[in-house]
Amino acid sequence: MSDQPLLANERIDQLYGQNIQIIQSADVFSFSLDAVLLANFVPQLPRAQTLTDLCAGNGAVSLFLHQKFAGRVQQIEIQPRLADMARRSIALNHLQNRYFVQTIDLANVFSVIPKDSQDVVVCNPPYFVNNSASKKNPNCYLAIARHEIKTNLGMVIDTISGLLKMNGHAYLVHRPERLAEIMTLMNKCRLAPKKIQFVHPHEHDEANMVLIEAIKDGRPGGIKALSPVIVHTQDNAYSDFMKEILYGQD
Amino acid sequence: MSDQPLLANERIDQLYGQNIQIIQSADVFSFSLDAVLLANFVPQLPRAQTLTDLCAGNGAVSLFLHQKFAGRVQQIEIQPRLADMARRSIALNHLQNRYFVQTIDLANVFSVIPKDSQDVVVCNPPYFVNNSASKKNPNCYLAIARHEIKTNLGMVIDTISGLLKMNGHAYLVHRPERLAEIMTLMNKCRLAPKKIQFVHPHEHDEANMVLIEAIKDGRPGGIKALSPVIVHTQDNAYSDFMKEILYGQD
Repeated sequence: MSDQPLLANERIDQLYGQNIQIIQSADVFSFSLDAVLLANFVPQLPRAQTLTDLCAGNGAVSLFLHQKFAGRVQQIEIQPRLADMARRSIALNHLQNRYFVQTIDLANVFSVIPKDSQDVVVCNPPYFVNNSASKKNPNCYLAIARHEIKTNLGMVIDTISGLLKMNGHAYLVHRPERLAEIMTLMNKCRLAPKKIQFVHPHEHDEANMVLIEAIKDGRPGGIKALSPVIVHTQDNAYSDFMKEILYGQD
Repeated sequence: MSDQPLLANERIDQLYGQNIQIIQSADVFSFSLDAVLLANFVPQLPRAQTLTDLCAGNGAVSLFLHQKFAGRVQQIEIQPRLADMARRSIALNHLQNRYFVQTIDLANVFSVIPKDSQDVVVCNPPYFVNNSASKKNPNCYLAIARHEIKTNLGMVIDTISGLLKMNGHAYLVHRPERLAEIMTLMNKCRLAPKKIQFVHPHEHDEANMVLIEAIKDGRPGGIKALSPVIVHTQDNAYSDFMKEILYGQD
């Protein structure tokens, strides 16, 4: 599409801690802490060769992983406007030789990526059930990214499992509200949760995010619940942990 | 059994925060932080009239609840030695008019408590799968309390659900390692997890305990992940939260 680095109302955000630039637009989609924390939750992947970023949006999650993973990345995004942003961010960071964007519905992903072929799948899916009573963002781009309009949790988890090789690793961010559903669906779809980490806005707040690592055909049991992420200090500054991720500072 | 308040090698522990005395014995069973934290996790129960404490051990969990719950308590414990301790603690705290101990296997609980009759079930079950490779405590009392020798997680969750009325509440403590299994079993047994809270020995440690509230026939979804419990400060003192529970101090 465009050769211009930026379209109207777009900006470039730099994540200093990861040495990467991401094209953002408040009009259509901006990565959020969810993407930053999901990428942080993913460990170094020295042996993995293939990675799929499902529900990729502007590609932020897998772009953040460019120093942890040296193999081939497929970003799957249904919305052409967001897929275009992802392509331009890939070019901006000179990652075209190993990052690729597929503008397709997750339901059709196996037409471009073989089943059982991926070492790693990362996914920051829509969080909210699409029912007629739910308040959706009037902005269609944002509504599709946030609500299960074009997909649903069962399809997402089934697709993640279908993409992964045996012993492949999935990394997912979601809302704690849906944890039981996620674990039940993973159990049905051959995914064994292995690590979870909850994210709390402040130390004494309920969690508003949960990060989950699962292994395809992994042995059931043995989940580790990592020490919680606390985003803000009591005076609403970023915690040291967040500063380290966002700015590369200790 | 004995009219003596204490047998050999027994002691009375006072939980000041809850104004209760519990007969303990390191030889056969002592309540631990798990029981204290489970009881703390249970809210005030002003409308509940019937409560069952499954896998009750020396009865600590439901004894800790004596100020939160004014109705009838049934403690179910398979081991006569522990059930006897529970009976003597009940007498020691003058709760005989509403606390009762049944020395039976959980598999036979419906011979003494009707199905679908309980408003609340609390349970601190054996945590560890009983397989021949697992190291078990050579002390038989402790082995039965800690390992799934006389029961297993599926039976525990099925029994909890069977005891509860529709919309009755279950409170369970377990190990995070088995969270996926717990959630999958709850889903099969009509229990909808509603609140979870993780317990971390120190702020930067993995969790070693998870507390779960579930509602029978509750709507799926909507789990709240409460702010984590941190047991110790960096210098290994109890955290303020723990001091409040243990000693009734702020």
